[in-house]
Amino acid sequence: MIQTDILIIGAGPTGLFTVFEAGLLKLKTHIIDALPQPGGQCSEIYPKKPIYDIPAFPEILAGDLVNNLMEQIKPFQPGFTLGERAETLEKLGDGSFVVTTNKGTKHTAPVVVIAGGLGSFEPRKPPIANIADYEGHGVAYIIKDPEVYRNKKVVIAGGGDSALDWAIYLADVAAEVSLVHRRNEFRGALDSVEKASELAKLGKIKLFTEAQITELHGTDALNGVVVKHNDNKKEDTYLEVDNFIPLFGLSPKLGPIGNWGLEIEKNAIKVNNAKDYQTNIPGVFAIGDVNTYEGKLKLILSGFHEAAVMCQYAYQIINPNKRFVMKYTTVGGVEGFDGSKKEAKKEVIQSIA
Amino acid sequence: MIQTDILIIGAGPTGLFTVFEAGLLKLKTHIIDALPQPGGQCSEIYPKKPIYDIPAFPEILAGDLVNNLMEQIKPFQPGFTLGERAETLEKLGDGSFVVTTNKGTKHTAPVVVIAGGLGSFEPRKPPIANIADYEGHGVAYIIKDPEVYRNKKVVIAGGGDSALDWAIYLADVAAEVSLVHRRNEFRGALDSVEKASELAKLGKIKLFTEAQITELHGTDALNGVVVKHNDNKKEDTYLEVDNFIPLFGLSPKLGPIGNWGLEIEKNAIKVNNAKDYQTNIPGVFAIGDVNTYEGKLKLILSGFHEAAVMCQYAYQIINPNKRFVMKYTTVGGVEGFDGSKKEAKKEVIQSIA
Repeated sequence: MIQTDILIIGAGPTGLFTVFEAGLLKLKTHIIDALPQPGGQCSEIYPKKPIYDIPAFPEILAGDLVNNLMEQIKPFQPGFTLGERAETLEKLGDGSFVVTTNKGTKHTAPVVVIAGGLGSFEPRKPPIANIADYEGHGVAYIIKDPEVYRNKKVVIAGGGDSALDWAIYLADVAAEVSLVHRRNEFRGALDSVEKASELAKLGKIKLFTEAQITELHGTDALNGVVVKHNDNKKEDTYLEVDNFIPLFGLSPKLGPIGNWGLEIEKNAIKVNNAKDYQTNIPGVFAIGDVNTYEGKLKLILSGFHEAAVMCQYAYQIINPNKRFVMKYTTVGGVEGFDGSKKEAKKEVIQSIA
Repeated sequence: MIQTDILIIGAGPTGLFTVFEAGLLKLKTHIIDALPQPGGQCSEIYPKKPIYDIPAFPEILAGDLVNNLMEQIKPFQPGFTLGERAETLEKLGDGSFVVTTNKGTKHTAPVVVIAGGLGSFEPRKPPIANIADYEGHGVAYIIKDPEVYRNKKVVIAGGGDSALDWAIYLADVAAEVSLVHRRNEFRGALDSVEKASELAKLGKIKLFTEAQITELHGTDALNGVVVKHNDNKKEDTYLEVDNFIPLFGLSPKLGPIGNWGLEIEKNAIKVNNAKDYQTNIPGVFAIGDVNTYEGKLKLILSGFHEAAVMCQYAYQIINPNKRFVMKYTTVGGVEGFDGSKKEAKKEVIQSIA
C-alpha cells in the first residue's frame, strides 16, 4: 500500500504544481496518472504547441511548461504511479481514503485531490463494427507524426479544420489522399476549404462529400474501405487504402471518477470555489479543468491558483491541531525533502524584510 | 480626460497581467501607479530578489518577472499614468467612473480594478521631531545599495533581522557601525544574533541595547545623534555619525483608496471571491494582495488568476448585450491591438483541435 499525505490524481500541470504547494507546507505527495509519463495533455497530445497565456511567459511550448514544472517540484520528491488509471475510491473508518488503480495498485492518504484535467481524452469514433480490430493496424484517431503516412494511401474522414488541414498537409506526403465527409459543407477556416477544393480539382485530394466510410477490410491490417454515398442511387465506392484516419475530434470523459459519488455538473466535478475547492465528499478536492463552479475558467493558470488554496486547507485536515503560518518563498526560501535549500542572498532578503 | 475600458490602479505583476487578460477580450486598459516605473514592489524594492513560487519558474528574479510581463502585454498597448497616485473615485450618472490623481490627471472608464498590492509601502519611522529634514541627507529607511555607506559612520536602529543583518554586513563596509535597540532581546535568527554579539565583542559593532535615538543633529546634513538609555541614571550618549538608518520595517498603507467607500477588512478590500472579485461598489473590482476574502493567499499567482476571472465579468459590464465565448490562446493565438498576431503552426493546432 502506497502511503502519502496528499494523493493527486492527474499528472498534468495542475497536478504537478500541487506537489510544489504541498511541499512548501511539508506535505508529501504521490501522483497517479493513466498516461505513461507526467504532463497530461501537454506531453501526450501537444508537446510542441506554444501556449501564450501562462503569466510571465510571452510564449512557452507545452512540453517546456511540463519540464519546468518537473524541475520546480524536484526538491519535493513526489511518488508516481504512471500508466495506471485511478479506478475506485474507498473511505476508511479513520477518515482516510484508499484509491485503487485498474492494475490493482493501492494508495492511501488523508486527502485526495482530483486534478484530472478534462478527464481521459477519447477520440470520437465512427460507428463501424470492426474498427477496434484495425486500431494500430491502419486506423488512427490522432496524427502524431505525419511522416508515418509518407507514400501511403490514406483516407481521412471528417469535416472540420482538423480533417481539412491534414488532408491538405498529407497531399504532399502521402501517395494518395481521400477526404470523406458526410455533408457538402465543411466547418473549417475559409482558406482551408478553398485550398482543399483547389487540391481536389488538381486531383491531389480525392474528395467524397455526402458520403461516409461504412466498412473496413483487410486480414491482418487495413487494406480497403467502403465509401457509402448519402444518395442511395449512387453505388458504393471501394477504396484501396493503407490508412483510415477519422478526425471527428476528441471527446473528454471523466471515466471511473464519475462513479465515486461526487456531485457532477456538465461532465465536471462541482466544488466550493468560495473556500477551498473541496467536493461534496469531505477530504476530496477537485482542481483545474476537472472542476466546475460559477464563472469557472478552464485555464492552466486557474488550476495553479486552486492548487495553492487547496493545499492550505488540506494542511488543516492533515494537521488538525497545528497552526500554520504561511511563509513566503521569497523570504524563507524553498527547502526540499531531498535536503536541498534555495533562498535569496541575505542582503537581498534584508532589503525587503 | 484619459478614456479606456478597464482602468487599472497599480502596475505590479497583477495589474500588468490584467492588461493581457483584458486584451484577449479586446478590452483596452490604462494603468495608474504612484511609482515612476511599472512593476510595483518587484521593481522598486527588490528587483534582484529570486521568487520561487511562480508556476513553471523554478526561480525567477522579481525584475525579470516584470520584464517578462511587460513583453507579454506589449501587443495590447496599455496606457500608463506613472508617478501619480490615484486620489479620488467618482461615479457618473451613466455608471462609469472618473479617477483623478494627486497631480489632477483625470481618467474615465466603465470598469475600475484596484490591483494596488499592499498599498504604498511606508517605512515605520521613529518619532523624532525633525527626522523628515534629514531624509536624503543622512537618514534612510531602506538600504538599496550598501556601497553608499562605505567608510561612513553609520547608526542603525531596530531589533529585527533587518537591523541585525545589515549591521553585520556593514561592519565590513562602513568606517563605524552602531546598533541601537530599545530592548535587550533581538527578534532575529539565532545565528544573526550570535554573530552580532560576537562582532560587538570584537569592537566591530557598537551595541546599544535598552536605548533609542531621540535627537538628530547637523545643519545641512546629519552629523550626530543622541542615544537615550532606558535606564534614566545613565547619561545620554552622543554619537558622531554620517548616517542614521532606522530599520523598523515597512508598513503598508491603503492610502486614499481607503476613502473611496469600499468595504475594508484588515487593511484590505473585501471582494466576492465566489464570483468575480467585485467590491461592494458595482463596477469596481479588487484583485491581488490588496483584496481579502475567506482563505485569501497573498500570492502573485492568486492575483493572476483573479485578473483572468475579473476580466470576464468586466467584459459583461462593458458589453452588456454581447455574448462572449472564451477562446483559448493555444487554438486562436493572440492578436495584438498593434496588428501583431502570434499563433501556433497550423499542423500543431490541427493535431489538437
